[in-house]
Amino acid sequence: MILIGERLNSSRSPVKQALENKDENYLIREARRQMTAGAQYIDFNASALMEKEIETLQWAVPLLQQELNIPLAIDTPNPQAMEVGLKLHQSQAILNSISAEKARLEAMLPLIKSYSPLVIALCLDDGGVPSQPEDCLRIAEQLIAIFQKNNVPLANIFLDPLVRPVGVNPQAGLIFLRSLELLKKEFPEIKTVAGISNVSFGLPWRPLLNRTFLILARQRGLDAAICNPLDKDLVAQLHATEALLGEDPRLSNFLQFYRNYQKKK
Amino acid sequence: MILIGERLNSSRSPVKQALENKDENYLIREARRQMTAGAQYIDFNASALMEKEIETLQWAVPLLQQELNIPLAIDTPNPQAMEVGLKLHQSQAILNSISAEKARLEAMLPLIKSYSPLVIALCLDDGGVPSQPEDCLRIAEQLIAIFQKNNVPLANIFLDPLVRPVGVNPQAGLIFLRSLELLKKEFPEIKTVAGISNVSFGLPWRPLLNRTFLILARQRGLDAAICNPLDKDLVAQLHATEALLGEDPRLSNFLQFYRNYQKKK
Repeated sequence: MILIGERLNSSRSPVKQALENKDENYLIREARRQMTAGAQYIDFNASALMEKEIETLQWAVPLLQQELNIPLAIDTPNPQAMEVGLKLHQSQAILNSISAEKARLEAMLPLIKSYSPLVIALCLDDGGVPSQPEDCLRIAEQLIAIFQKNNVPLANIFLDPLVRPVGVNPQAGLIFLRSLELLKKEFPEIKTVAGISNVSFGLPWRPLLNRTFLILARQRGLDAAICNPLDKDLVAQLHATEALLGEDPRLSNFLQFYRNYQKKK
Repeated sequence: MILIGERLNSSRSPVKQALENKDENYLIREARRQMTAGAQYIDFNASALMEKEIETLQWAVPLLQQELNIPLAIDTPNPQAMEVGLKLHQSQAILNSISAEKARLEAMLPLIKSYSPLVIALCLDDGGVPSQPEDCLRIAEQLIAIFQKNNVPLANIFLDPLVRPVGVNPQAGLIFLRSLELLKKEFPEIKTVAGISNVSFGLPWRPLLNRTFLILARQRGLDAAICNPLDKDLVAQLHATEALLGEDPRLSNFLQFYRNYQKKK
């Protein structure tokens, strides 16, 4: 599974503060910790800085690239900020995110054509987040038709069926899992992604809920997760899941992770 | 999910010793701990005592019934011992187990007809444990045909697709999960059961593998698990799984378990 580190998000107050203070050490340390823990991408979201978002991207993107050489998922609803981030990014970034909302689609699509990033495409439209798996599938079909019409390679797309909190709707987890299953069945060649932690929003024992949900989503075929790679129990369980699902020939990843885990204890 | 406590098994040396010594306190305490932790049935296996098995059942079954009034899963391949256990059991016990092996089937079937227990039916025959999900399904079909012919209510049956160690075959987990899915699809009215811990036999980090496997099996529709209810992380994750799968309206079981867990910390 592809892990995208979720921690450099300005909705977290220590991150917001570090970005406001242009705290290089904090930024690099947080990114490196996630990378060391197994993240293949680092999600970077500075949108809580409002009018300073662009300036923050101009500072942070080259810094992270230079120090760590890890690709970023540039996470913003603002197309101007997205363009600044993609332009400064050296290797192939992830554009996080586009959706079937008309204004967002029209603003982000040219950036996809210009910079050829990987793309996280949210299954929502101007009607909002779909309440049923079939509506999620219908929006995904629209998005894919648009990508194909614009010659965006489907190999670059990650469909995101949108995780919503079970604390708000106890059926939300199931709706996500069914949506995921529908998407994987209908478009087996297109990857899927989800921000896992949203499922536990507002509830106690969030790490337990998050890692349990990651296992359930993995079994339904989730390809990539935006999550906290510093949660060792979560990563351990992901390795265990892959071992149990026959995705780890000779269990070498599981046993390697176990040995490192024991050493660091 | 129905939890069947696995700990009173004579293959565990402290249990074997306690049974040899007729240690009432040990027996009752172990059973009570499992019951308190959420087991609805206690598996009781004295088969490692060999020629003393029957005598041990004669002592233990009435004792457990009298002290705790919890139903037992009488776990023995020996039909004479099984009959002794079922005869002494007051409420409806679980017969663990029958299979499609000719000798076992012929010896156990009359007991099922006489005592009407719940029945764990292993999907194996004289050819051994099936290596493919389709073979598991074929054996289940044979077993069900036999139960129907003998007027055994299918509501009393738990099919067991047999968990084998991933340490021996990395595909074993997947074969089990696919078998389970096939059985649930073909016989939605019949319950399923599995001994979870076998999956991790011979590997390090068994509790992690066991609880991860329980989540995967639950998502595939497993109805009952023979497992260790004293593993709090396992039970917590089972509650989390049920909450995330929409099986816990208003998340009340999950939140209740969380509150008790916090209190006991």
